[in-house]
This record gives sequence, C-alpha cells and structure tokens, in this order.
Amino acid sequence: MNKPTPLSGFPEFLPSQRTVEREVIETLSRTFELHGFGNIETRAVEPMDQLLRKGDTSKEVYVLRRLQEEDNGRDKGMGLHFDLTVPFARYVLENAGKLEFPFRRYQIQKVWRGERPQEGRFREFAQADIDIVGRDTLPFHHDVEVARVMLEALGKLTFLPGFTLQVNNRKLIQGFYAGLGAPDVEETMRLIDKLDKMPAEEVGKLLVSEAGLTDEQAAKCLELATITATDDSFVGRVRGLGVESELLDEGLSELATLINATAPLNTENVRVVADLSIARGLDYYTGTVFETRLDGYESLGSICSGGRYDALASDGKTTYPGVGISLGVSRVLVPLVQKGVLDGDRKVPSTVLVAVNDEESRADADAAAQALRGHDVACEVSPNAAKFGKQIRFAERRGIPYVLFATRQEDGTEAYEIKDIRTGDQVPADPATWTPQNESDLKPQVVVNNEEKK
Amino acid sequence: MNKPTPLSGFPEFLPSQRTVEREVIETLSRTFELHGFGNIETRAVEPMDQLLRKGDTSKEVYVLRRLQEEDNGRDKGMGLHFDLTVPFARYVLENAGKLEFPFRRYQIQKVWRGERPQEGRFREFAQADIDIVGRDTLPFHHDVEVARVMLEALGKLTFLPGFTLQVNNRKLIQGFYAGLGAPDVEETMRLIDKLDKMPAEEVGKLLVSEAGLTDEQAAKCLELATITATDDSFVGRVRGLGVESELLDEGLSELATLINATAPLNTENVRVVADLSIARGLDYYTGTVFETRLDGYESLGSICSGGRYDALASDGKTTYPGVGISLGVSRVLVPLVQKGVLDGDRKVPSTVLVAVNDEESRADADAAAQALRGHDVACEVSPNAAKFGKQIRFAERRGIPYVLFATRQEDGTEAYEIKDIRTGDQVPADPATWTPQNESDLKPQVVVNNEEKK
Repeated sequence: MNKPTPLSGFPEFLPSQRTVEREVIETLSRTFELHGFGNIETRAVEPMDQLLRKGDTSKEVYVLRRLQEEDNGRDKGMGLHFDLTVPFARYVLENAGKLEFPFRRYQIQKVWRGERPQEGRFREFAQADIDIVGRDTLPFHHDVEVARVMLEALGKLTFLPGFTLQVNNRKLIQGFYAGLGAPDVEETMRLIDKLDKMPAEEVGKLLVSEAGLTDEQAAKCLELATITATDDSFVGRVRGLGVESELLDEGLSELATLINATAPLNTENVRVVADLSIARGLDYYTGTVFETRLDGYESLGSICSGGRYDALASDGKTTYPGVGISLGVSRVLVPLVQKGVLDGDRKVPSTVLVAVNDEESRADADAAAQALRGHDVACEVSPNAAKFGKQIRFAERRGIPYVLFATRQEDGTEAYEIKDIRTGDQVPADPATWTPQNESDLKPQVVVNNEEKK
Repeated sequence: MNKPTPLSGFPEFLPSQRTVEREVIETLSRTFELHGFGNIETRAVEPMDQLLRKGDTSKEVYVLRRLQEEDNGRDKGMGLHFDLTVPFARYVLENAGKLEFPFRRYQIQKVWRGERPQEGRFREFAQADIDIVGRDTLPFHHDVEVARVMLEALGKLTFLPGFTLQVNNRKLIQGFYAGLGAPDVEETMRLIDKLDKMPAEEVGKLLVSEAGLTDEQAAKCLELATITATDDSFVGRVRGLGVESELLDEGLSELATLINATAPLNTENVRVVADLSIARGLDYYTGTVFETRLDGYESLGSICSGGRYDALASDGKTTYPGVGISLGVSRVLVPLVQKGVLDGDRKVPSTVLVAVNDEESRADADAAAQALRGHDVACEVSPNAAKFGKQIRFAERRGIPYVLFATRQEDGTEAYEIKDIRTGDQVPADPATWTPQNESDLKPQVVVNNEEKK
C-alpha cells in the first residue's frame, strides 16, 4: 500500500490536535448537563423518504447500498443523516411514549453531506445540538433558555475567538411585512435574507419586481433590516417606522424579552445582538431565530444557528413544538486547527515517562507506573532501556513534561527521582503519592498560537 | 409523519439507557489515557479498494453514493468502515511522518456492516480499540501491555457480568503443527478454529481428510486444543505431548510471559486464561491472540478480540508491526440494556428541580439554578408554575432526587428549602453552597436489575 492521501472534505486530526476537539466537546457536554440536557445519540442513517422531505438539501445526501445488494432504486433505502434535527424529530416520534416532555437533549455527532469535493466544504463534520421539545405546547421562556445555555457554553471556550450571537424573531419581521401590506410575506422574507450576499440596493429592486412591494414599502423593509441593538432599544426604532400588526407586537415583545434576559451573559468573548436582518432562509422557523459569527472568521458564515419550530415533529394527532440551536464544531475548529492557531501541548496523555534502567527491571518500572496511575497520574513506561539522554528525548518529542528514574541506593533499595524536563529540576519522588505541582500538567492543554492568527 | 418504527440492526438508547454507555466509554477512555494511549477519531469512510482488501468481509460493506451522482461503478468510490483497524492502519501510513513510534492510541467509534436485517445482527455498533504500533520493530512486552490495559479497564466495569480473557499464541500452535509434521499448517489451524462450532470428533476427521494429518497427528492437535490454564502450567502439558520446534518454544515462552504478567490482575470480575484452542480464524495475526467471553452470555461469542500483527501496515519501504485489542461496546451493552439488566437511575442529568412559585418569579428561580450550577450541581427549572405536588411529580417521573423551593419570609426576603423526594426530608438550603450529601447524586448512576438477569 502506497502512502495514502487525505480524502477532500473528510478532515482528521493528529493526536495533539484532537485535544482541542475533546476539550470543546467536554466543555459543551458539561455545560449542557448542568442545565439538565441529557445526551443521546441517534443512528447515522435514516430512511431516504425522511431525508428528502426538505427538498432543498436532497442533493447533499449520501445514499447507502450493501455491496452485495441487487437492486437499489433511487428513492428508497437509507442515507446518512445530514443534520441532527431530522433524526431527533424521528427519535421524538418513535419514543414519544417513553420520553418526558418538555424533553431537553443534547447530541454531539458527525453528520455527512454528499458535496462535490471542493475547498472548504466538509463532507463529514461534527455538530453539537441542544433542543427542547414540548408536547402540544412549549412556553417561550425555553427560547430564552437555549440561548442562555449556548451562550454560557461558548463563553467557556475562551481559547476560541469571540462569538457574536445574532437574534431575531420571525413574528417580528413577518408581522412587519404584513402590517406594511406586503402582498407576499414569504417572498419578501426570502429576498431580505439575501442581504448578506447582495447589495441592499439590488435587494430593494427585487423586493419591488419580485415581491410586489412599492418603492416606499421596500425602503421600509430594508430599513428594518439595518436595525441592530445590544439591548431592547430596537423596539423604539421599529415603532418609529410606523408599521403596526399584532404579530409584530408579539415578535417585538419576545425579542425584547430574549435580549434583556441574555444581555447579562455578555462577556469579552461572547455577545448577543438583536439583528433584524437575520431570517434563516427557507427553514421552518416560526419565532426566534439565531445565527452566530466567529470574530475574525466572518467568512465562515453562521457557525451556530437555530430557532423555534412550532412543529418540530408531528404524528398527525400530536404536534411537538421545539426550540434549538446547533453549533458547527468542525466548522469552527478545523480551520483554526489546520492553520495552527489551536493545538494540544503534547502528543500523548502521559504526564510522566517512567524510565527503564534495563529490561530485567521493566517490572519495577511497570510497578512504579501503576503506583502513579493509582492516584490518576497518566504515564507510560519507556519502550526500551536506552541511555537516559535518549529516554529524555523520547519524552521531549511527545511533550511529556516529567521523567521518573529509579536509582539504586547504597543499601541496595531503589529510590525514585523525578525530573521536570522543561526546567531540568530533579527531586526525589514517591510514585505512590507524587503529583505535579501544576494541576494543568495532569492532562494535555489547549494552546493558542496567536502569531499564527491571520 | 406516522409513528416511525425502529430500523432493525441500528440500536438506539433512551436517555437513561445512554447513561450506561457513557459510563462505559468514560471508564475505558480514562483507563486508556492513564496508560498513555491518546485518543483519535478517523473518518467514517474509506476508499472501497482499502475496505475490500480482506476478501472475507467484502459482502458486509456499505457503499456510499451521492444522491445526484451519475455513475457509481461497483468497485470504486467509498464505503463505511466495518472495523477500526483498516482506518487505523491507513491513518498510520498517512501520518507516519508526524507520529511518534511506538504509537499508542485508542479509538471509540461506530462501525457499520451491511448485513441483511436479522435478529441479533447489528448493522451499526460501537467499538473501543487500543493498539500499539511500532516502526520496523515492536518489542513483545507491548503484547503484555495491551492485555493488562484492557483487563484493567474491563475490571473497572463492575456493573457488567464477569469477563474471561482467553489468550493463545499463533507461534505456539503453528510451531506445534509444524513440529508434528503437519503438511498444511494454515489449513490445520483453520480447522482447529472450528472447534467452538463443531464436535471435536468431526474436526478430527476433517484434519485427516482435508489437512492431510495422520490419525495420531490429528489426535495430538485436538489434545493441544483442550489445554487451558490460569498459570504457566500449560507449558509442561504441551511439552508432555512430545512435539518440538523452535517456533513452538518461542510461542510457549511468550504465552507464559503474558500469563504470568497478567495473572496478578485477575479479580472477581475479570480473569485471564491460556486457552490453546483459540486461533482467531483467518485474521492476519502472527503471535499473541485474544478472545473474551462474557460470563452468562457466552452465546454472544467473543466480545473483545485482538492480537499481534507483524505487519499492521506497510508502505513498501517501512513495515509497522502492531498489537491491539478491540472491545465490542454495543455487542456487550445492547443485549444487557434491552433486557433491562442495565439502565441509568434517572432520565435527566439534573440533581435538582428548582420549583417556580409563579411566572413572575421565574427569574429568581433561574438565579437559584445558576447558583447551584456555579458549583457543579446540575439542575433544571420547572417549566411551569403548577401546584407544588405537580412539580414534585414532574421531578419524580424524571428521577430527579431533589426539589428546591423558595419561600417568602415574614420580613419579605426569600429563603430556600430543599426536599429529598425519595425520603421526604426537607431542610433549609443556600443555592450558592448546597450540594447533595451523597456525591453519587451529582450525576446519573448505572443501576443493575439482577432480577431481570436470565
């Protein structure tokens, strides 16, 4: 077998890089659990008819076929899930009788999209989703809750660039367009959603030619979309545009509640903004909508999105409204790790390398290692009894900070010394009790190489 | 959408059941890391030509096709990995220049096999693999190491039935057959491997008719396969059969070393046995081989297998010998969880439900919850301000052990009381400092329902 080449769109990490991803997943998981979100995993595959319900993404599905299978028509069989929402909705319906509602869960799994190989497009990537789903009803305060939980989680990822969570409300914009007398509210929203890719002037022309607005109505829609605020001051500015509708009032009230309740969570690293241009395209959101930009990496687009669905799932008799938000873990991490901005500080979990004097005393080295592990100090035993200088270089190459040596005493017993190979300090140590002075040496740490930052 | 039905072969867990799987994965991960094994994940897909190198498993591969793809010939493209060894070997070759050898890693991921839907056959399941791979050479003590690490990990899973790790050595059996004058050593081994499915008498006949042995040679092969021992006493018994070869000596010495070094790890839950019938079929093992039975669930077959490969991978210039062992996480857990033998003790991570007096004071309840989370107590706030009895039943249904109440004092301030709803005890509590008396209440625990055990 020749040296294999990476498959485009399927990013993989080296062991030290994987430290970054594990730290992110652990921090997210712990935060979600502190807020009562339970973890589930769903199978990687769903029936094709489920995956194809949203026509827009159908072209990105990977279809599965057993190698020995005779026939595999194009619209049956199974495919790999392309997000975690479709499988979650199916899981809720399938297990509704065994779940307690409101059901809050988090899910951190890979998803797959059958993209053509292309720079920057992932075909396999990890997402972290939180959702709360009710049976028949779901109070609005859960919209606030998912925003707060995700903000708190992102705020703990201090080694990442800052996040800006942009929030809007479909009721607000749809109510505004309706109150304005827009003949086609959906089309108006679809066109406004193009503002991040198209100049406002061109969108304005399309609002007139395709959504049937007057020039004045189009101007007001564009003006609404320019409004952003970090507090509820946007309410007055919207009112100033002189449009009225009950749905608009409801949307303004919800968005103001959400902004007021999340503003206290703003930190240096994370901030929340009401941004009235956010519409979330064609997705089936019915109230709150979220998008998130990563500071300095705006070209990645929204890396954490979601919102309120009035019908996440329905079996005909019962409807399950939901609100959720999904972080693109790979989308954020892969570029930062590949650029070298983020890495782990060592290639192995070991805090200590236990040196081996000669093969005859390997069992002693194993016993010393086992004594360290007994109080949770990760370590490995040198694979050979090379000269000490070589064993120290073995540790250095892996980033292992300490080397433990056995020395034969004059009375014939063994004594141990431990060397911090970063400083050269060497002190006596009992493997049964020794632990590093800095707790952070107990496991690999994420390091930020700022000079690599663009 | 009607209520969906489960897909045969794709097991999924309810939130409480997932507690069991997470506890197993966490225990395995932590043990592997204590021994210096770093975690990696590889992509789910490999090129078909890699997956098909072992002809025997080709029928079980899921082939991928993009939905919009025009042409997809049968022997190109990509498929889902069916184990973690093929991707690991590819990862080692692809990243050889960036890895440090001996390279030890663990990997816990789903794998897929394109089986026909059939009772008890999984089409998606999780495996946990540890491997150590060297460049050009890999000392034998690493065979001992992987056995010890997996034994230690299994020994910590005390809520599972006991494990019996059966060890043998290919050099021992191949050396024995060669020393005996067997004309076709490979075929002899292949037939001996059938002993777990076929009576010894029939295997004996096949050894004569298909492997060309004499009756006496066949009898000796069968006798070798009956030898088991929990110490190195098997060496004498093999010697007693009067067969000699250098390869046999090497195998005996290796197996004796392994048994002597692992015997001290035997516990009530885990034991190691030299079992000279173990051959591991057609896999490319060249020395140590492992299989493992789960006590009381022997019909599951081997749930943890592996061994030594002299060439885990090779790029023509460099050969990478490896030794590893792979635990079938789903294979062990799914039957036990589905029978109800194992479950989590609650449906949510929350230790505390914070009661809500009325919607106006929800912010106070949120603040109390946040105070609990500040010192790592997971909690959730009641979704509504129902009567307290109803809020307590809400907690009960989820298995949340504690409910925190705010009570308005005569002086107008709020005071908090916490109720253990299992005992009914209710005491004053400060959300900023309260923590449960039993640390085990801080997170969901695995429970064993022995009456469900068959």
